[in-house]
Amino acid sequence: MDKIVSLCKRRGFVFPASEIYGGIANTYDYGHYGVLLKREVIDAWWRSMLVARDDIVALDSAIIQHPRTWEASGHLAGFTDPLVDCRTCGLRFRADHLDVSACGRRPSKHPGQTSDCDLTEARAFNLMFQTTIGPVAEEGATVFLRPETAQGIFLDFKTVLGFARRKPPFGIAQVGKSFRNEITPGNFIFRTLEFEQMEMEFFVPPDEAEHWYEHWLRARMDWYSELGLRGDHLRLRAHDADELSHYSCATSDVEYLFPIGWSELEGVANRGDFDLTQHAAHAGEKLEYFDQGSGQRYVPHVIEPAAGVGRSVLAFLCDAYDEDEIGGELRTVLRLHPRLAPVKVAVLPLLRKDGHPEAARALHAALKAAAIQSEYDEGGAIGRRYRRQDEIGTPWAATVDHQTLQDGTVTLRDRDTLEQERIAAADLPGELATRLQAPWRSPKP
Amino acid sequence: MDKIVSLCKRRGFVFPASEIYGGIANTYDYGHYGVLLKREVIDAWWRSMLVARDDIVALDSAIIQHPRTWEASGHLAGFTDPLVDCRTCGLRFRADHLDVSACGRRPSKHPGQTSDCDLTEARAFNLMFQTTIGPVAEEGATVFLRPETAQGIFLDFKTVLGFARRKPPFGIAQVGKSFRNEITPGNFIFRTLEFEQMEMEFFVPPDEAEHWYEHWLRARMDWYSELGLRGDHLRLRAHDADELSHYSCATSDVEYLFPIGWSELEGVANRGDFDLTQHAAHAGEKLEYFDQGSGQRYVPHVIEPAAGVGRSVLAFLCDAYDEDEIGGELRTVLRLHPRLAPVKVAVLPLLRKDGHPEAARALHAALKAAAIQSEYDEGGAIGRRYRRQDEIGTPWAATVDHQTLQDGTVTLRDRDTLEQERIAAADLPGELATRLQAPWRSPKP
Repeated sequence: MDKIVSLCKRRGFVFPASEIYGGIANTYDYGHYGVLLKREVIDAWWRSMLVARDDIVALDSAIIQHPRTWEASGHLAGFTDPLVDCRTCGLRFRADHLDVSACGRRPSKHPGQTSDCDLTEARAFNLMFQTTIGPVAEEGATVFLRPETAQGIFLDFKTVLGFARRKPPFGIAQVGKSFRNEITPGNFIFRTLEFEQMEMEFFVPPDEAEHWYEHWLRARMDWYSELGLRGDHLRLRAHDADELSHYSCATSDVEYLFPIGWSELEGVANRGDFDLTQHAAHAGEKLEYFDQGSGQRYVPHVIEPAAGVGRSVLAFLCDAYDEDEIGGELRTVLRLHPRLAPVKVAVLPLLRKDGHPEAARALHAALKAAAIQSEYDEGGAIGRRYRRQDEIGTPWAATVDHQTLQDGTVTLRDRDTLEQERIAAADLPGELATRLQAPWRSPKP
Repeated sequence: MDKIVSLCKRRGFVFPASEIYGGIANTYDYGHYGVLLKREVIDAWWRSMLVARDDIVALDSAIIQHPRTWEASGHLAGFTDPLVDCRTCGLRFRADHLDVSACGRRPSKHPGQTSDCDLTEARAFNLMFQTTIGPVAEEGATVFLRPETAQGIFLDFKTVLGFARRKPPFGIAQVGKSFRNEITPGNFIFRTLEFEQMEMEFFVPPDEAEHWYEHWLRARMDWYSELGLRGDHLRLRAHDADELSHYSCATSDVEYLFPIGWSELEGVANRGDFDLTQHAAHAGEKLEYFDQGSGQRYVPHVIEPAAGVGRSVLAFLCDAYDEDEIGGELRTVLRLHPRLAPVKVAVLPLLRKDGHPEAARALHAALKAAAIQSEYDEGGAIGRRYRRQDEIGTPWAATVDHQTLQDGTVTLRDRDTLEQERIAAADLPGELATRLQAPWRSPKP
């Protein structure tokens, strides 16, 4: 994990937020390549939901919703961690994680061991961030930053049903930020105070819930595999009965073998009719579907695949990270799926003279006009420029040299095989567009 | 504006959030077509920043940053509205907007007229949402939801300079949510409590600030024009000296003629060296650039084009909204730029039999495989299906009929000219991809 964190900071994928003020707990900013990678992950998710199928519609609900939302969902009463305070050092710890917690503060009598801290009894601490909106008087306007995007989908179920001309089975998909006021062990972007979710609620007739639960388990596993995560680093784990959330009939986690061990990448839950029933009761409004064909009226059951953007980004980075040796030199390389790579192709003039930069810039412009993320780089020896691109996962590098000016061809270097081929510069945009559509498998063993 | 609001709700572009609980002040959710439209607007902005040029990098900084950020930026002390409370009804009003405010609550003596309310003296009310993060003790962890994305860019200036291998002039661009606890007059999505910004901070040598300010004024006006906003509904207005924010040397607003009158669509500000100087002083860290070539060391000046996603969406919708008459029937049509349209093409089988649906579904799949947002619709008379697509701004409709099964051609109908032409279904993805790249002008007078 240290190597990933270090690469992310060095090349500006992800780094701690507010660093000039000493940072802020478990909060990170995404730099240039991180934003590009994140956008590709989100785009791939939207494609799988909206383009590859016709039974899902998009939604973008607000972060701050009516506070009764969280009464109905159960978050206000039950979304808590058990916390203890230390009377000596003033720090706060999760009561259920004391064995892996450490007190690093003076004047703790024994820094590094919470077992020697002078702890209070455990208290339930709600994980929702609370704030106040105007203009009504303070007491009436306590609201919460959503701890999940899902509830916004349930609130809008009836509205969407009205305009979307859909009948179950159909889904509503959403990507957006959620916030949890958690004490975390600090595993980089695995768990952060604010995080982006990709959630989809799939509404189905009650008797089809089991079928669609199995369907989405497979579909979500396939999504990660097709984007390159290696099969032996990916598994499904069904929750035991005592692990299930209050709303769930069945949940399975898609787990990935992170450097911190097997951990949840995404949860797929059969939420039954819990949410629609709760909101219907709290709002005093029927949230059900009337099937004109069969004359049936029912509250749809819900299958929810809930993925995290940051966690996916971390898994793709961990899976892609590799080191090898080229000509006696250590090389760091991200073997990312070409569709996820922040930069698809680097365009490199061999020399900074003799017309190479001009020809390279023309090719760079042609690639961008074809909507292929290209990066132009003329700084330093060619080998060093290749290394810089390998480190950010650029699958191809096109080098402009003397021959380019004669016959219009460039050298195309492959990040993984290191093979170089000559290809007509004019054909490059089309060729890369084709390659970006092709299936891909990680070359890592 | 009522017609826009009504269309947005009816077709699921945008509608009030938390409606089943009675709504929440000035907060809206985006439905399917709204999300697709919003994504196109954001994509167009990213393209103009990252693809059309090579001197800008992307950033995605956190919403909750270290609280000293807002001390340095001046928001903690100065980002306030002057507010008065009514001692009778308990409502709160902006002291500088009393002439357009109305009290609608009992037991106000004279509902609808704040001038008869029993008002307190005006107090400064900070517009930042405040919350608390754990696990440290309450008193030390008051934080704020960012009221603008810009400050995250300034915080990361030095980090980005380190990894991005850039020198001024260069820019850092960001899209993300900001939050302002405002009392607003409720003009739909013109001003909302949470809103998405598209901000770019362009760092330049001090003596080039004036040049780049002019450059970005033109560039941003061109962006809106190229996406179809009519020239006579778009203007630049320079702020008077007494209107300027504390950080600004010069600001101009790109204004659009909304139904509520000429209003700010985007601000382009010359922020000078205010922000970097402030953060340098508060963080005790130099935020400057050393030019190895010239040996010069300086604090870059900053030009900031700051656009709002929701406000842009509203302007594009208002500009596109039109009504005409076809065969004696009133038609509502959104004359959106094809690149912004949520759906690019509708695929319609003339009949629900005779092989039409199968051929139409095959064409629909081919269009989606080519990444063209297509919608399949077989419900209702063909004229009614055209109207549904007109209303959401779909520029083209491809109809599959008897002839399609014989010669492979479909009818392609144009939303604006209403002309119909026969085109080979196999050529349609390529043809539409080409048309989507072409320049476009609103057909509205």
